[in-house]
Amino acid sequence: MGTKPYKRWQGRLHEIIYEADTPAGKLFDVVLLIVIIASILLVMLESVKSIDAQYHMFLDISEWIITILFTIEYILRIVTVKKPLKYITSFYGIIDLLSTLPKYLSLIFAGTHALVALRALRLLRVFRILKLARFMGASNHLATAIKASRAKISVFLFAVIIVATIFGTIMYLVEGEASGFNNIPRSIYWSIVTLTTVGYGDIAPVTPLGQFIASIIMVLGYGIIAVPTGIVSAEYTRKMNSDDVNNKPVVNAVPPHPSDVDLNSLSCSNCLAQDHKDKAKYCHKCGHSLEFEPSK
Amino acid sequence: MGTKPYKRWQGRLHEIIYEADTPAGKLFDVVLLIVIIASILLVMLESVKSIDAQYHMFLDISEWIITILFTIEYILRIVTVKKPLKYITSFYGIIDLLSTLPKYLSLIFAGTHALVALRALRLLRVFRILKLARFMGASNHLATAIKASRAKISVFLFAVIIVATIFGTIMYLVEGEASGFNNIPRSIYWSIVTLTTVGYGDIAPVTPLGQFIASIIMVLGYGIIAVPTGIVSAEYTRKMNSDDVNNKPVVNAVPPHPSDVDLNSLSCSNCLAQDHKDKAKYCHKCGHSLEFEPSK
Amino acid sequence: MGTKPYKRWQGRLHEIIYEADTPAGKLFDVVLLIVIIASILLVMLESVKSIDAQYHMFLDISEWIITILFTIEYILRIVTVKKPLKYITSFYGIIDLLSTLPKYLSLIFAGTHALVALRALRLLRVFRILKLARFMGASNHLATAIKASRAKISVFLFAVIIVATIFGTIMYLVEGEASGFNNIPRSIYWSIVTLTTVGYGDIAPVTPLGQFIASIIMVLGYGIIAVPTGIVSAEYTRKMNSDDVNNKPVVNAVPPHPSDVDLNSLSCSNCLAQDHKDKAKYCHKCGHSLEFEPSK
Amino acid sequence: MGTKPYKRWQGRLHEIIYEADTPAGKLFDVVLLIVIIASILLVMLESVKSIDAQYHMFLDISEWIITILFTIEYILRIVTVKKPLKYITSFYGIIDLLSTLPKYLSLIFAGTHALVALRALRLLRVFRILKLARFMGASNHLATAIKASRAKISVFLFAVIIVATIFGTIMYLVEGEASGFNNIPRSIYWSIVTLTTVGYGDIAPVTPLGQFIASIIMVLGYGIIAVPTGIVSAEYTRKMNSDDVNNKPVVNAVPPHPSDVDLNSLSCSNCLAQDHKDKAKYCHKCGHSLEFEPSK
Repeated sequence: MGTKPYKRWQGRLHEIIYEADTPAGKLFDVVLLIVIIASILLVMLESVKSIDAQYHMFLDISEWIITILFTIEYILRIVTVKKPLKYITSFYGIIDLLSTLPKYLSLIFAGTHALVALRALRLLRVFRILKLARFMGASNHLATAIKASRAKISVFLFAVIIVATIFGTIMYLVEGEASGFNNIPRSIYWSIVTLTTVGYGDIAPVTPLGQFIASIIMVLGYGIIAVPTGIVSAEYTRKMNSDDVNNKPVVNAVPPHPSDVDLNSLSCSNCLAQDHKDKAKYCHKCGHSLEFEPSK
Repeated sequence: MGTKPYKRWQGRLHEIIYEADTPAGKLFDVVLLIVIIASILLVMLESVKSIDAQYHMFLDISEWIITILFTIEYILRIVTVKKPLKYITSFYGIIDLLSTLPKYLSLIFAGTHALVALRALRLLRVFRILKLARFMGASNHLATAIKASRAKISVFLFAVIIVATIFGTIMYLVEGEASGFNNIPRSIYWSIVTLTTVGYGDIAPVTPLGQFIASIIMVLGYGIIAVPTGIVSAEYTRKMNSDDVNNKPVVNAVPPHPSDVDLNSLSCSNCLAQDHKDKAKYCHKCGHSLEFEPSK
Repeated sequence: MGTKPYKRWQGRLHEIIYEADTPAGKLFDVVLLIVIIASILLVMLESVKSIDAQYHMFLDISEWIITILFTIEYILRIVTVKKPLKYITSFYGIIDLLSTLPKYLSLIFAGTHALVALRALRLLRVFRILKLARFMGASNHLATAIKASRAKISVFLFAVIIVATIFGTIMYLVEGEASGFNNIPRSIYWSIVTLTTVGYGDIAPVTPLGQFIASIIMVLGYGIIAVPTGIVSAEYTRKMNSDDVNNKPVVNAVPPHPSDVDLNSLSCSNCLAQDHKDKAKYCHKCGHSLEFEPSK
Repeated sequence: MGTKPYKRWQGRLHEIIYEADTPAGKLFDVVLLIVIIASILLVMLESVKSIDAQYHMFLDISEWIITILFTIEYILRIVTVKKPLKYITSFYGIIDLLSTLPKYLSLIFAGTHALVALRALRLLRVFRILKLARFMGASNHLATAIKASRAKISVFLFAVIIVATIFGTIMYLVEGEASGFNNIPRSIYWSIVTLTTVGYGDIAPVTPLGQFIASIIMVLGYGIIAVPTGIVSAEYTRKMNSDDVNNKPVVNAVPPHPSDVDLNSLSCSNCLAQDHKDKAKYCHKCGHSLEFEPSK
């Protein structure tokens, strides 16, 4: 499994399987997406007892078909990449392997609950689609806005946790076990349910003092909800203004923010690195050429 | 029902029924709006058993009056349009027909539940009013902001669905049936209830681990709620800035965004196309004159 | 009760009672505010049975003191205004009168429930304080942002009602009475509870299809919540930008928005009109001088 | 405990304990943070009965270790500050003392509930970490945005309280005790639960009229939620724009907002005052030099 001479067909298949810039590559991604979604729907349907009882045969066969498709894909991915070991040990490599295993393992261990968990891992394969989503253009904005606000959102989450802990402890002392505030972790859970305005009502204050403190938490949560929204809004507004400015010649133009450059869906055939700039010719990680050069 | 010579009275009636730019046309729309709302209120009231028991006679007669009014309107719409078949097979044509049918059908099939569903379709007629709402000016802004953010909102919704599916599956494995997480679809339903901060509490985690994971989902939902708001906020801010800029002469003016032009309520008397620009003289779809030209 | 010659002491008292620009006027408003809040707290405490049982005597005496204070204030307001009838028939005049009545009426009709409702009307007196709040400066911004967004928010609310009605009807047909969706109005109530992400859980879908449709409503509500926030955010950003611009000399200054001018707390001693501009010398409604001119 | 001659080692230790600008000072803060978090986790775990029963010995010993560490820290803080009395009577001085007491007191009063409350006060020590958080840079933004919006948020909260009170009273009159609206304070609690979109569902309207009014409150809450978000968004956008402008030379530059200056983590060794500007050489409160000058 070392680095054997890289064949022309391997390069072609690599382009189809790992990239989404050619029609064949896009088609592969779309088909893969459909199979992944089908596999997820299967796991869902099997978890519904009435459906599983009635259509067990159909679900079982479908599951085998998908398992075989995933196995073929996994083998192709190993074959077409220059450093197979790197792929196999990568995050997606492990997910791809685990996605094929459950049905094979079910032959050995009959119907274990843990296998359902393993099959659920296929969900993570969906993130491959985000490669496609990037072509919708908008996700770049989204990712940029979130990335730029990351530090602020961390501080914010940190503040939420402190507030939830303080109020959780207070409510534990005020309400006590009678109202369902059995212990501090549970009270903190209640605080978060309230601060985030989810409000299940499985635990709710019953004493007047508890309800008064709860009201404070709610109004506080009401004010706090403004913070992440404000952050993202401002980030978006900045992003848009700079877009507007970049699209037309103006006097006092603001230079593009470093995070605003467009990336493509190419993944290096050598080291699998992604997020190359649109005009990049060499991998930003290993320096390998990104253009398709068949080994003559 | 072919294209017979278009009479002067047809043109006049067309102007009244299909447009809202003349006093008579506006009056027609307002009256129609009142009748539609009355018809919806009737369906609502009839669904309340105690009211239906007491005022059955009154509700029945009112229903007949509205059905007859709708029938007359439907006939007039067919008569005044140049290509009746086009209207009949259009979305609103079908809705208008279905709005008149339930009462007639109730003579044949006594009191079927399905007829209520049919009558509920009248709700869709309300969208005709949006033609009026456009005159409030503000809806243009609203529609523009939503349209401009459509791609971003799609990506966002897609992300919400993935997150809900992943956490739904995790909670199904963690909590199990004892807490009401019977199957994966139901767990996903719970995830969405939590992510959107609705929080009915019909299903709620009871194990400490489940409550911990739920807390993560809630705080995540708290952060996620920021995204669509940020998108729309930024879109609005951009829109407003460009409005401010357009209203007064400035040095580095930004040209109006293509989606910011004003549309009127005219609908072509030939092909029923709408959304004509305020100064348009010919239908943008079929080229037919939009100005009222009586066939001499 | 015609227009008798306006005395000097009347002018002085008018300044104290109706305005908040002099120290005495401010003091009067603050004392009034405290009495109003005390009166509201009294109504609240009396509604709690355990408290009412224990402190009935104290609550009763306090209520009499407040009633007498309100009566004196009411008489002074009549005496110091130039056109008493105008005050008596004004919104605040009626509220002020109704605030004094309940205790007197309780002597005739012993302990009626309706009198509690009447006393609750005192809550509306609180809005007099907003005159004070205006001095906090910030409320001007708030009111401006809301006023400027009024049209947009109307269109938005209209859209929310239509969406709630459509989904309410659908859920009534899908879920039926077994799940608590007894009739369409109740289903619409549920729709609004869900759309606004309140989610009591008193009514919740139980069928898989119902839960699926509910999920759509929730995600929709999630997206819709973005709209009013976006509107107000943009409005605030515009307001702030124009503030920034007005505070320093710049090249391409944007003229102040018409709604951004500062208003004072004066109310005309002739016609009670408010919202005069800071530099106004004559009432914008009746032309009466706003400056204190004692009738020599 | 007067002002004895300040020794070199005291200055060094002061730098480590009270500041976070040197590597040793940062390390001290990080270790302190870990110990504080550990102490909080201990309180939480002890509140869970099943855990306390099984690991009582371990929790007890850990609690003693933390108590001793806090005691040492408290003594060091007293020793290294120039005016110990000032520290002892300061907010953090009292919190630090109270954090060490519970375990000692438990030797005298065996297992009182009140001691849990006392231990919970340790939570407040977490705010010391915010000194660290400041280095994450983002918290400055956050604090600035909140501070700048403080006045507006007050007015907003004031409005929320009035709305909650009015609707709470209305619902008390409309729904009455049968639905759980026992008294006005409880109804106001319900109003806040609804306005903030928390919606526990422990109290919910059951009469049609009550549900109709509740719907109005919800939609209102939906609109109101927009206000704090709008305020913070606008504040952030302003902050960001001014950042963008400050980072590059432009023609019509906006001067930095007074609240945008950077503060450091130094605390004066004389009076403990904090929030000194980055370039400050003397304490802004007592004029004492902020630079480390060992008393030769």
